[in-house]
Amino acid sequence: MSSDRESGSSGEGEAAAQFGIVGILGGMGPLATVDFMRKVVAHTPSRTDQDHVPVVIASIPQIPDRTAAFKGTGPSPLEALVCSGRRLIEAGAELIVMPCNTAHLWYSDIQRALGTPMLHIVDAALADVWKAKGRHTRVGLLATEATVASGLYEQRAAVTAERHQLEWILPTDFEMQAWIAPAILGVKAGDTAEASNYLVQASNALVERGASLIVMGCTEIPLALQQREVGVPLVDATDALARRLVKWAMKARAPV
Amino acid sequence: MSSDRESGSSGEGEAAAQFGIVGILGGMGPLATVDFMRKVVAHTPSRTDQDHVPVVIASIPQIPDRTAAFKGTGPSPLEALVCSGRRLIEAGAELIVMPCNTAHLWYSDIQRALGTPMLHIVDAALADVWKAKGRHTRVGLLATEATVASGLYEQRAAVTAERHQLEWILPTDFEMQAWIAPAILGVKAGDTAEASNYLVQASNALVERGASLIVMGCTEIPLALQQREVGVPLVDATDALARRLVKWAMKARAPV
Repeated sequence: MSSDRESGSSGEGEAAAQFGIVGILGGMGPLATVDFMRKVVAHTPSRTDQDHVPVVIASIPQIPDRTAAFKGTGPSPLEALVCSGRRLIEAGAELIVMPCNTAHLWYSDIQRALGTPMLHIVDAALADVWKAKGRHTRVGLLATEATVASGLYEQRAAVTAERHQLEWILPTDFEMQAWIAPAILGVKAGDTAEASNYLVQASNALVERGASLIVMGCTEIPLALQQREVGVPLVDATDALARRLVKWAMKARAPV
Repeated sequence: MSSDRESGSSGEGEAAAQFGIVGILGGMGPLATVDFMRKVVAHTPSRTDQDHVPVVIASIPQIPDRTAAFKGTGPSPLEALVCSGRRLIEAGAELIVMPCNTAHLWYSDIQRALGTPMLHIVDAALADVWKAKGRHTRVGLLATEATVASGLYEQRAAVTAERHQLEWILPTDFEMQAWIAPAILGVKAGDTAEASNYLVQASNALVERGASLIVMGCTEIPLALQQREVGVPLVDATDALARRLVKWAMKARAPV
């Protein structure tokens, strides 16, 4: 860092300090992390490399399965999540984000353990729901079994914006087991074609039960479901978190 | 790390130790890093998240421009590259790779400063050239001005495989200024459509001068050039390095 080969003013340390370095706690799954990074890049106003937001990423996919842990059929991911978070802090991260909805069941525990500011993916997605709201008050949710069963979205919505009353249209057990869970596993295994078929069926079922907007509340889902395949507006939690990250980093950037 | 919430056997620290953690020194540019990560995921045999290779990534794009530094019109990127490398080591990386060809002009300096094993992107690309070789002995090179002018590819080929005699078809000054350099800047600025037009013209010019195979020796280029657009085989250095990374991580993985 104290190299004498060049002046300090051109070193990455100082340049990066003009931005805030964001840590991305990823790997859940790895392709969802790639999708998230792609969206961060796409949402950054830039002409050159140097305009882009500095990020460090831990994509260490050996984190135990979040849904299995919630159901009590697998070990807790908390230790692994905190370990990845510490790696990011060691690497210089000043803010942590997690492109995985279900991992947010451990959000408070992780934040307590790390002591670093974090953005919450559900807050980012809900901001897009409020923006699109109007007549879209019946919100369908496509998410993992754990995200749905835990009430992660409804509870966060009730806490952060109690004035907005939303009606949640949740997947039935059948829809979860037949379509949504297999679709998520399919994306993780690299098979997006069948996943896409399943997710369209699940979306149609939510719309038939009254959903006038659907939240893609699992970061695997936007890899296999497109707006043009669904008759109501889709809110993409991954995209919402990416935009919030860019906004944070731009604010943290001191005037040059 | 010594949490008592779960048994150590399920912690990410130990699980990850079954693999080797790879550090990706990226951000040059950010979209090329995303493309590289996507290729790493695609080349990993996997059914679940946990099968994937653990990686940590520094995408801190404030690294000074490599070509400007080589031409003496901008500061050296070395300090910034080493700083990003140190972040990755702090985060647990046991091997470093750089998805940027031009940055390999500083490869030896970086390796000396970090003392960590690294894979060389040109070695990975050349292995694909040898594999495709046969009648393909006249190799066209699409790369930055600095990669071309420094002789990075020819020198590495001469050192690492002196028995293989290759003839290199390099871009002319006109082709570099009119097509290749603007295409690379175009990708960095998010404009891949015009970049694609330029790169097809540059490829055609190399083929007309006798190239029977073309190496995409800049990690922006595969984002804007497809095999179907070119009449000779394309070697993608990004893809070659991704495959080499996966191979290294799989070998480093202890039998479970």
